Amino acid sequence: MTTNIDPRLDTSRVIRADRGTEITAKSWLTEAAKRMLMNNLDPEVAEHPQSLVVYGGIGRAARNWECYDKIIEVLNRLENDETLMVQSGKPVGVFKTHENAPRVLIANSNLVPNWANWEHFNELDKKCLMMYGQMTAGSWIYIGSQGIVQGTYETFVAMANQHFGGSAKGKWVLTGGLGGMGGAQPLAATMAGFSALVVECDETRIDFRINTRYVDKKAKTLDEALIIINEANAKGEAISVGLLGNAADVFPELVKRGITPDVVTDQTSAHDPLNGYLPQGWTMEHAAQMRLKDEAAVVKAAKQSMAVQVQAMLDLQKMGAATTDYGNNIRQMALEEGVTNAFDFPGFVPAYVRPLFCEGIGPFRWVALSGDPEDIYKTDAKVKELIPDNPHLHNWLDMARERIAFQGLPARICWVGLKDRARLALAFNEMVKTGELSAPVVIGRDHLDSGSVASPNRETESMLDGSDAVSDWPLLNALLSTSGGATWVSIHHGGGVGMGFSQHSGVVIVADGTDDAAKRIGRVLWNDPATGVMRHADAGYDLAVDCAKKQGLDLPMIDGANGK
Amino acid sequence: MTTNIDPRLDTSRVIRADRGTEITAKSWLTEAAKRMLMNNLDPEVAEHPQSLVVYGGIGRAARNWECYDKIIEVLNRLENDETLMVQSGKPVGVFKTHENAPRVLIANSNLVPNWANWEHFNELDKKCLMMYGQMTAGSWIYIGSQGIVQGTYETFVAMANQHFGGSAKGKWVLTGGLGGMGGAQPLAATMAGFSALVVECDETRIDFRINTRYVDKKAKTLDEALIIINEANAKGEAISVGLLGNAADVFPELVKRGITPDVVTDQTSAHDPLNGYLPQGWTMEHAAQMRLKDEAAVVKAAKQSMAVQVQAMLDLQKMGAATTDYGNNIRQMALEEGVTNAFDFPGFVPAYVRPLFCEGIGPFRWVALSGDPEDIYKTDAKVKELIPDNPHLHNWLDMARERIAFQGLPARICWVGLKDRARLALAFNEMVKTGELSAPVVIGRDHLDSGSVASPNRETESMLDGSDAVSDWPLLNALLSTSGGATWVSIHHGGGVGMGFSQHSGVVIVADGTDDAAKRIGRVLWNDPATGVMRHADAGYDLAVDCAKKQGLDLPMIDGANGK
Ligand SMILES: NC(=O)c1ccc[n+]([C@@H]2O[C@H](COP(=O)([O-])OP(=O)(O)OC[C@H]3O[C@@H](n4cnc5c(N)ncnc54)[C@H](O)[C@@H]3O)[C@@H](O)[C@H]2O)c1
Ligand SMILES: NC(=O)c1ccc[n+]([C@@H]2O[C@H](COP(=O)([O-])OP(=O)(O)OC[C@H]3O[C@@H](n4cnc5c(N)ncnc54)[C@H](O)[C@@H]3O)[C@@H](O)[C@H]2O)c1
Repeated sequence: MTTNIDPRLDTSRVIRADRGTEITAKSWLTEAAKRMLMNNLDPEVAEHPQSLVVYGGIGRAARNWECYDKIIEVLNRLENDETLMVQSGKPVGVFKTHENAPRVLIANSNLVPNWANWEHFNELDKKCLMMYGQMTAGSWIYIGSQGIVQGTYETFVAMANQHFGGSAKGKWVLTGGLGGMGGAQPLAATMAGFSALVVECDETRIDFRINTRYVDKKAKTLDEALIIINEANAKGEAISVGLLGNAADVFPELVKRGITPDVVTDQTSAHDPLNGYLPQGWTMEHAAQMRLKDEAAVVKAAKQSMAVQVQAMLDLQKMGAATTDYGNNIRQMALEEGVTNAFDFPGFVPAYVRPLFCEGIGPFRWVALSGDPEDIYKTDAKVKELIPDNPHLHNWLDMARERIAFQGLPARICWVGLKDRARLALAFNEMVKTGELSAPVVIGRDHLDSGSVASPNRETESMLDGSDAVSDWPLLNALLSTSGGATWVSIHHGGGVGMGFSQHSGVVIVADGTDDAAKRIGRVLWNDPATGVMRHADAGYDLAVDCAKKQGLDLPMIDGANGK
Repeated sequence: MTTNIDPRLDTSRVIRADRGTEITAKSWLTEAAKRMLMNNLDPEVAEHPQSLVVYGGIGRAARNWECYDKIIEVLNRLENDETLMVQSGKPVGVFKTHENAPRVLIANSNLVPNWANWEHFNELDKKCLMMYGQMTAGSWIYIGSQGIVQGTYETFVAMANQHFGGSAKGKWVLTGGLGGMGGAQPLAATMAGFSALVVECDETRIDFRINTRYVDKKAKTLDEALIIINEANAKGEAISVGLLGNAADVFPELVKRGITPDVVTDQTSAHDPLNGYLPQGWTMEHAAQMRLKDEAAVVKAAKQSMAVQVQAMLDLQKMGAATTDYGNNIRQMALEEGVTNAFDFPGFVPAYVRPLFCEGIGPFRWVALSGDPEDIYKTDAKVKELIPDNPHLHNWLDMARERIAFQGLPARICWVGLKDRARLALAFNEMVKTGELSAPVVIGRDHLDSGSVASPNRETESMLDGSDAVSDWPLLNALLSTSGGATWVSIHHGGGVGMGFSQHSGVVIVADGTDDAAKRIGRVLWNDPATGVMRHADAGYDLAVDCAKKQGLDLPMIDGANGK
């Protein structure tokens, strides 16, 4: 849906990163930044590349095409002791630093809090004084849908571990929504061993996901869907079904029938009641018309239906289902409609992801600058070799290779923690050095990670000590990544949950096979997850305190984790 | 006014930084951080040192005494390739970095914007999960009242330059308030060559300022005051008078009499209508009683009087006086009381300080770690030698030496810009190297500076392009100072104007006389003011664009200032 209203649209632009070992920049560090910026705008990767939009609404890679061209120009001429400053997608200055400093420093979408809302942002954005960086869009480390599949997979694996003794065999998930992100649910669920029943009101979405093998079957009635699920479960197999219907009808129907799924969640676009959620009893066409005629009526009807759905989620939770909010703000909407106990089921981070964050485990990822898929396959094998005892991880690597096509430069994501990130990255650097890999690799992560984000409605919801809104942590994280010698570092505002609701930082480092890179990698990719362990230990999580002790972190105010 | 309500109060604590050349830390870099933290809590320097409060309301140097002790302990053991992380005054981690990275990284009072208000902050502060860092309190580079005298002096000098051809001879300032900060006005005014009539309703404040020689004369009637001013002006001399009275009475009286001061401003505590401004017709005692009985009535009466005063300021402006808001928010209060054109007179930053910021000129300061005043006097002489052609600066240095007592470690502030900061600092480093100075010096600045703050009601009010609220700039500034190898770097929220209204960064670097320090100084103290020139050039200020060109900055999107 590339629209013409954006003055930044340039339909003549088709960007694709260079491949191979010839470089036009003065070093692999700056070549890497350039290729990754370009890769973010590869039509295979970005949602609306000709408007510079990478993903997540209007998450951009550069402010406009003039800025994009200038960034490329500067990256081609940047010296090894210079640093480029990028302010909301615009290259504003080049300064002398030193060889162990980052080559690029990025700040995107940051606003003084009292003005940190969409209205003020949009005003600045329209005047082209700003850009929305989302998380990995403006920090040049987006790798397509593999990221969301992996994040969802990890959540389902955590559910299996927490509720079902590590095995999802014979268990099933009820959820809603097969959209851009939600479409990852059925694939991630079956990868994790769950069957999945996904209610989706738009048949074209179901068909699209069937065609790309993210969903196994389509059903038009609940009975039909339940038969498929039950059969698979009986055989101990995992299957996914897209059920054409309205989640606000189907969820209560299960309550009425006394049928309890093992896991219940939702990924309709409840965060946007005007455009993202179909009210009960409405057809898609009626909703489309009503949006033009009476916005308030649509919002009202949508929120009422969400309240019905959330009530059913609460009922299913009482009946024994592990119920969780998957970051679409549906609890808030239901609360506003009078479901006073809407927040009785937890968000997915406090429920499932936080224990991972306590050990610095999060969305670690890397990209082969060569463009050669073989480079990634070799790193896959290296990961298995270095982490031999993690079947979920091996399963992920196998399934990802088999089921998820590369988009743009070949890349891999896998959730690993403090104890593994630097180790893996050093091994990759060694593989570059020996020539086992055909070119350097870029190593980074999502901003949704252990030590890099403050986001009280998502990543830092319900922190043990109530420090959800304290954003000193991601800022310190960015300063430390800079101090260690990351290749580029970014500080963003508003990613994921929108303006006003989050602050977060990004880090990317290049493994070019040199000994200097190894030193930097050893510091940066150790310190980065370590700040996550530190942040959670400081908040009082035992798991994090234990991890800090085991890994020998030096946390002066934590008894026994002082390292000295 | 040390109160007992603060659980952080420990009356057994009396902190004073070590002097001399013996150090207990492992290097001068960490010794410097330690001495500067201690110096911020010196009873000569801090307002309520035993509660760790340095200045500016509750601006603290460390979260509590336990954290303070631990910071000192860590600074004593920190290695030259390690970095201490301080999160809102708490030492949370020590990480391996490298010799050219900062030794300390600080983030104070940062909150995710939607929660960035005093209510939420106070909740966290009470639970001891946070601390208010103000600007230089939590970043360990406060130097007592010299800073505010100098800032006010620079503003008056800028007024003289802009309105009176560079000479304030025979000109006079009308203002209000002789409190903690406002008390600097008469001294700064006479230093800059203006006479000053300061209306103050509390006689004890006038007497205090007379005793410390900040004010020359006291008057009890307007007639008396005007005679003193007129006589001095006739002789071409500058004199200051504290007039006992209410500004809301005196300002309109001048309008009525048709008397036009050359400059009009105000520093009553208008930002706090309950406690900071005496309503017309009230005695101090009556106000004190009313504050206990009926807060709303006090606020109402105070704001009504402020409206009267602002109306008079607008009238005096029309009559030809250069009228400006000095950062006490009195315009906002009057606006809320119906003075719809209250913002017709400008804030002091857009009116007078911004041209300085365009050239990277701001509150550069340094401290003699030896504790020896002679070290400062020698640097004073060095500044004069290296900047021979700036009479205002020489005047400031002479007057400061004569009239302003050192507080804590001897220190000096002077406003210099991009073209001078690194030069001066390198000369100081050389003086340490040759032994001309008896010990290293610490070099830093206020956060109220050219490239280090986003604060739409003060430092970034009315930016040419409307980018007042964009806080990418101070964050980039902090990342760049970190990249260059500053000794400590900080990112704060809420300094000056309070929670929600500002984001800013600090930088401090140690001149220990080594060649390595010289390299770091050359980068950091060039880049820091350069980001200010960059930020203002980006906003479209010609002065900044010219400065960037003249100084050879590399600003890729500014025509002709690209450096290549
Ligand atoms: N882990 C996270 O925190 C995370 C990650 C990504 C997305 N999200 C959230 O998940 C939600 C979905 O994201 P997306 O990118 O897939 O959005 P999307 O708009 O692309 O997809 C939403 C889908 O829900 C369907 N739908 C709407 N109302 C329905 C109803 N009543 N019954 C059944 N189906 C209905 C729509 O037809 C659409 O296919 C968003 O709210 C997003 O913010 C959270
Ligand atoms: N440059 C800046 O932006 C900057 C710097 C420092 C302070 N400030 C602002 O300046 C103001 C003063 O700061 P301070 O630390 O001196 O405050 P303070 O409270 O110590 O002093 C205020 C003084 O004003 C007097 N006063 C109150 N009402 C009066 C009236 N009606 N008439 C005459 N005198 C009256 C009080 O008796 C008191 O002495 C504050 O609002 C502060 O925020 C601005």
